[in-house]
Amino acid sequence: MKKIKIGAVGLGRLGRKHAENIAFRIPNAELLAVCSVIEEEVAEVQKSWGVKYGYTDYNEMLKNEELDAIFIASPSALHCQQISDALDAGFHVFSEKPLGTTLEECKLAEAAVEKHPDKVFMLGFMRRYDPSYAYAKKKIEAGEIGKPILFRGYSQDPEHAIEGAIKYAGHSGGQFIDMAVHDIDLARWFLGSEAKSIYAIGGCYAHPEFGQYDDGDNVSALMQFENGAMAFLFAGRTAPHGYNVETEIIGTKGILRIASVPQKNLVEILDEHGVRKECSQDFLERFEQAYVDEVQEFVNCIIENRKPDVTVYDGTKSTIIAYAATESFRENKLVRL
Amino acid sequence: MKKIKIGAVGLGRLGRKHAENIAFRIPNAELLAVCSVIEEEVAEVQKSWGVKYGYTDYNEMLKNEELDAIFIASPSALHCQQISDALDAGFHVFSEKPLGTTLEECKLAEAAVEKHPDKVFMLGFMRRYDPSYAYAKKKIEAGEIGKPILFRGYSQDPEHAIEGAIKYAGHSGGQFIDMAVHDIDLARWFLGSEAKSIYAIGGCYAHPEFGQYDDGDNVSALMQFENGAMAFLFAGRTAPHGYNVETEIIGTKGILRIASVPQKNLVEILDEHGVRKECSQDFLERFEQAYVDEVQEFVNCIIENRKPDVTVYDGTKSTIIAYAATESFRENKLVRL
Amino acid sequence: MKKIKIGAVGLGRLGRKHAENIAFRIPNAELLAVCSVIEEEVAEVQKSWGVKYGYTDYNEMLKNEELDAIFIASPSALHCQQISDALDAGFHVFSEKPLGTTLEECKLAEAAVEKHPDKVFMLGFMRRYDPSYAYAKKKIEAGEIGKPILFRGYSQDPEHAIEGAIKYAGHSGGQFIDMAVHDIDLARWFLGSEAKSIYAIGGCYAHPEFGQYDDGDNVSALMQFENGAMAFLFAGRTAPHGYNVETEIIGTKGILRIASVPQKNLVEILDEHGVRKECSQDFLERFEQAYVDEVQEFVNCIIENRKPDVTVYDGTKSTIIAYAATESFRENKLVRL
Amino acid sequence: MKKIKIGAVGLGRLGRKHAENIAFRIPNAELLAVCSVIEEEVAEVQKSWGVKYGYTDYNEMLKNEELDAIFIASPSALHCQQISDALDAGFHVFSEKPLGTTLEECKLAEAAVEKHPDKVFMLGFMRRYDPSYAYAKKKIEAGEIGKPILFRGYSQDPEHAIEGAIKYAGHSGGQFIDMAVHDIDLARWFLGSEAKSIYAIGGCYAHPEFGQYDDGDNVSALMQFENGAMAFLFAGRTAPHGYNVETEIIGTKGILRIASVPQKNLVEILDEHGVRKECSQDFLERFEQAYVDEVQEFVNCIIENRKPDVTVYDGTKSTIIAYAATESFRENKLVRL
Repeated sequence: MKKIKIGAVGLGRLGRKHAENIAFRIPNAELLAVCSVIEEEVAEVQKSWGVKYGYTDYNEMLKNEELDAIFIASPSALHCQQISDALDAGFHVFSEKPLGTTLEECKLAEAAVEKHPDKVFMLGFMRRYDPSYAYAKKKIEAGEIGKPILFRGYSQDPEHAIEGAIKYAGHSGGQFIDMAVHDIDLARWFLGSEAKSIYAIGGCYAHPEFGQYDDGDNVSALMQFENGAMAFLFAGRTAPHGYNVETEIIGTKGILRIASVPQKNLVEILDEHGVRKECSQDFLERFEQAYVDEVQEFVNCIIENRKPDVTVYDGTKSTIIAYAATESFRENKLVRL
Repeated sequence: MKKIKIGAVGLGRLGRKHAENIAFRIPNAELLAVCSVIEEEVAEVQKSWGVKYGYTDYNEMLKNEELDAIFIASPSALHCQQISDALDAGFHVFSEKPLGTTLEECKLAEAAVEKHPDKVFMLGFMRRYDPSYAYAKKKIEAGEIGKPILFRGYSQDPEHAIEGAIKYAGHSGGQFIDMAVHDIDLARWFLGSEAKSIYAIGGCYAHPEFGQYDDGDNVSALMQFENGAMAFLFAGRTAPHGYNVETEIIGTKGILRIASVPQKNLVEILDEHGVRKECSQDFLERFEQAYVDEVQEFVNCIIENRKPDVTVYDGTKSTIIAYAATESFRENKLVRL
Repeated sequence: MKKIKIGAVGLGRLGRKHAENIAFRIPNAELLAVCSVIEEEVAEVQKSWGVKYGYTDYNEMLKNEELDAIFIASPSALHCQQISDALDAGFHVFSEKPLGTTLEECKLAEAAVEKHPDKVFMLGFMRRYDPSYAYAKKKIEAGEIGKPILFRGYSQDPEHAIEGAIKYAGHSGGQFIDMAVHDIDLARWFLGSEAKSIYAIGGCYAHPEFGQYDDGDNVSALMQFENGAMAFLFAGRTAPHGYNVETEIIGTKGILRIASVPQKNLVEILDEHGVRKECSQDFLERFEQAYVDEVQEFVNCIIENRKPDVTVYDGTKSTIIAYAATESFRENKLVRL
Repeated sequence: MKKIKIGAVGLGRLGRKHAENIAFRIPNAELLAVCSVIEEEVAEVQKSWGVKYGYTDYNEMLKNEELDAIFIASPSALHCQQISDALDAGFHVFSEKPLGTTLEECKLAEAAVEKHPDKVFMLGFMRRYDPSYAYAKKKIEAGEIGKPILFRGYSQDPEHAIEGAIKYAGHSGGQFIDMAVHDIDLARWFLGSEAKSIYAIGGCYAHPEFGQYDDGDNVSALMQFENGAMAFLFAGRTAPHGYNVETEIIGTKGILRIASVPQKNLVEILDEHGVRKECSQDFLERFEQAYVDEVQEFVNCIIENRKPDVTVYDGTKSTIIAYAATESFRENKLVRL
């Protein structure tokens, strides 16, 4: 069995999880190299998992000719340059979302991808690979809900994670770019069209700290797409019950809801609080399988010489919409795209 | 519009509710008389609701020739004699369950009903008239679940009502007669057959007080019916979440569950306890509509000159099974009927 | 027991139901008179229910001095004049929603109400009296969800009722006025504030017939309120599963959802379609109890000499917002109030 | 990182899945050898997954000194002898359930395990390792539901798999041994006690074919345990909705339910059938993660030199109870243990 040899850059919380998945949960992949500017992280991962090569310099890793592909989970501002460099160095590339932090960066990445049509490039919109989302998509493609009318997407982080969110607020780009971009991608994917108008509102309902970054702790947006379909997005940082990512697609003949109860597992509790389900508490818990399945798809694409469903343009287009939402929210006006 | 004139005996918690329903929620009924050995209750109800006649002596009420029907919600031990007397006095009769507290009493009631075939007699197995149970019954009759295989019935009182249950334990006849008799009736009704074998177990898991009456605080029984179908009953007094009456009928082609979440209403709460529904807390809350609908059916039967679905024999047969379960539980043996 | 004597005008589908509730389900009310321009309706109702007085002329009914209150369920365009006339004639008044079909009409009704401060006036926003909505409101007032962030209200009619909707489309005033006005009232009630900006979109996704009336078959709106809270409304006429009225209130400390599954009853079915609940199919089924409880409250207010929670101003203010939404939808622009 | 080298015997449907999990989903395990009497299976698996050694003779495999552990997923009748041989050959052993098909076989396995106290032996009661069951167990151990009163376990195969079940019926040992043994193990595990009395009933409600093997297509049993707790088991082969394994543990202070809706994923569908969830269709779908997690635990036990929660005695004791249930069912009598 051919194994795709992967070098992973970025060993933060999510990056480490990705690296672990590549090492142990993707049959036809091998984690051959890891890279991080933090030397201890590299050493620790190499030792724990028996990874052959370790780097603190990304460009050094790109010189490793044993590698087939580069997996990028570094800080967002580095994504596009690293994508471009890796493609130019002859590698297939997977990059975590967001594609970039500015439109210029996204365009740079687009150009690099276009320059290397023989290479697989994939962007980490993992929700598309979650078993439930993938199942919903198939039903829609099979016509089971008719013509989509409204997409509703919620992305809520739990209140208990608020400290980290406040600390990171200055770098997040705001909730539309940081959180709602996933829902924007899903809306585009499920509706099969692009947004043409957007009105966004919100505020700091519990945590005024976000105000100094022109952000809110809870925001929402209403969009109309070119094909007439509607999308409503809600992103919040104060969910009392846990990590809540829920989606609804209302069609003319059926309606699909994904995770309207963000259940932790299949246990139901009956006690003095009533009949209840406990909830997922973070994205690694909720999307554990999706994080595996997206990388599996990336590896399969390389082996089978085909391109994944998520393209570099999905990154750019979602970013454009997220920026438009941010503009609408900050200036309290209707934005047309 | 013809109104059936009713005299109600018994003004305890449930009796008073019935009287109120007759007075105000049954269009073609009129609460013409009330009777209770507690004189103040009679006076209070007469005054509050403008009831024309009040009695402290049941036999006096039976002399009132303006009345069409007698509604019995007195203590269980009086039911059968009062049924017999009312029928002999020329009235239609509705009696709360249980039919009687001994088989001899039940037989007395049967004889009285048989002696007056022109009179409507109805027993208060109200669950059959609950909109959800009635809906399930229709589906079964329409063949939607095929042939019934297993009936499962739970009747759980909330732990917070335990004090009253302990106080009443000496008079309850035990949980099979006191609580599970409703499920026994439902099992017979849904399965369309009679029990032929029964094994019952249980114990005092939280409240040893029930032990002195040869009762448990939680008991269960497994029965096989003459047509081969199975029934599992569970009755408990320590439900942590509320008043839980749930039923499942497993058929060869479909399964129906009634109230597997005993929700108080349509509100769902998402908070630090997860995603939850609060629960019904007592039988008046859960079966409010059923208590109205059964009396409406009684009145309709009188007006339309027909007989209700629940007969005096349902009372006797359910009692026989409840006694067999009690015997099985107390003597730890298999009982064949 | 004092009974409030009521004269009811309008005996259409909902009007007849109201009249029936007044006659039989409100203990301290009496349906003393009915009025309709359709003579046969009047005769039929009088005969069936034994109603003493019947009228085909509303002003004749207002001369009946035995009456205490007038109940208006006539066509919307007549509401305000009838309200004004009835108040001037010395009656307490209940009017079905909408208050009026134009703002001028609403102002007329306001003036009449203000002129008769000793009279009870109540508007039929029955959802507030639905047990689940009332329960949610109490939780919010008790601070259980903290500060409201987002209100989400769906009002979807079933596709199987589309023919009637198309026929009535020319008179409906559009979906915001016809359907979403209930959600607008709920949003104002739950959020405790007034809308300040609104963006509405939508279209004809399945039934182009609505286009000729500048209406859609599915529409939505995003609003921000003066206190910063957000509201998202969705109204549709093509629900595949039934009559779906669902509401969510997201707060800083808790979230409440009302009827996110519009279940017909407590029966759950397990068959080849999976595990499922069947749904309510129209507003009379869903809000049966609310239609009783709101009238009970009206009658209680008269007896106890107090004013109901729903005022004439709720009618005007909801109408203003519904018009603003319609304007936003038709002209595809952001409307500020 | 040390990798445990495993030789797997049995490459049927479940055996192949196990082998695949060992090869690709258990980081610290290596599938070094496979064994099956079907030569093509061995060749195919070796080639597809790059497995170093292939055998058609189990005893040959036991001579391979590179191996650390043997994984048994062969036909049930071979389990105990293979367990004994592998332990004697110096290997750690994992065996699929059931431990054996007769009590004598089980005793043979017990003796072998006792003879090699330094070796890890584990039995494949995978449900204990399902994330939801493991979560429930922790809650019970933490005292969250108080003292267990009743265990309810359903194991239902879908009707669409009936053909295979009929074909296999002669070898299955009957439903209590074939299917309910998992629930018996769970009951013992959750209740922390052993059964002392059992009454079992059932029949052929849809498929008389099972009758010739003294089996039913749906059976149930009620048991009392030594600590007084009760257990109700239901096993069926005609589930209309899918593969339904659900469990309830009723305690004095709380109730836990696991998978009362056997949902396929997190997608909810709203259409003409109501609001519904589609269901899991077989055990590989439902217990995919459990099959991985149990083997991970086996490997961890070897590495960490400790014993797993499931012992050889769990196999024997569950078998004894399953036989008692079968006897009770066949002879229609109460069996005491």
